[in-house]
Amino acid sequence: MPANNKLLKEIRWNEQELVPVIAQDFASGDVLMMAWMNADALGESLRTGEAVYWSRSRQKLWHKGEQSGHTQKIREIRLDCDGDTLLLKIEQVGGIACHTGRASCMFRRYDENTGWQAVDPVIRDPADIYKS
Amino acid sequence: MPANNKLLKEIRWNEQELVPVIAQDFASGDVLMMAWMNADALGESLRTGEAVYWSRSRQKLWHKGEQSGHTQKIREIRLDCDGDTLLLKIEQVGGIACHTGRASCMFRRYDENTGWQAVDPVIRDPADIYKS
Repeated sequence: MPANNKLLKEIRWNEQELVPVIAQDFASGDVLMMAWMNADALGESLRTGEAVYWSRSRQKLWHKGEQSGHTQKIREIRLDCDGDTLLLKIEQVGGIACHTGRASCMFRRYDENTGWQAVDPVIRDPADIYKS
Repeated sequence: MPANNKLLKEIRWNEQELVPVIAQDFASGDVLMMAWMNADALGESLRTGEAVYWSRSRQKLWHKGEQSGHTQKIREIRLDCDGDTLLLKIEQVGGIACHTGRASCMFRRYDENTGWQAVDPVIRDPADIYKS
């Protein structure tokens, strides 16, 4: 059986044929982002060794970092007990996962007095990251 | 404005009025599970200080640990850049998040030769956890 088939086996796709994927920094353990994959995206991730998601807004494969250079090198892939969530342990190239220029997309912390607060620093100006 | 409204503000619910929630161990950084919340679940989580999810299979609020005793004490709540994913940093009571008796639900690791392999130990027999 090709590796690809072994990978797809036991995954329970949702009604849109997608599975949620958590990307976690392999070294720090920080949760960086959550995105989605279909079978093609997962196959491409395995083939390239880098995270390839399915962009729901653009309805196409999204090789993370294709514009910014902030690719995610896959170190480990995990599947949960129900088979409906993937966890990627990755090496975040450039140390920036978020399009806002922050290390992680999970940068807003809830404070019961003030609501959601951005508590993590912008490492690099997005205008600089995404300039053509 | 009540705290509850501040919490709900800026969250982008999906077409089922749900948001995916990643539960991460506050101390170890391990990703323990992924589940879903609606506004009621999130309000109850804030009120009780413990994770309350929306069970999609049972279509009701699910106070995590209500049967097993393995509740999740919330230490921090994060929201991502797009406002459509929550991250709970929690203290996992009993050290077991998974119904299989493991610390984390993400216990299957992909191996290109052998496929998905359960690599984390069962800490406590589920028959013992869920006995009446």
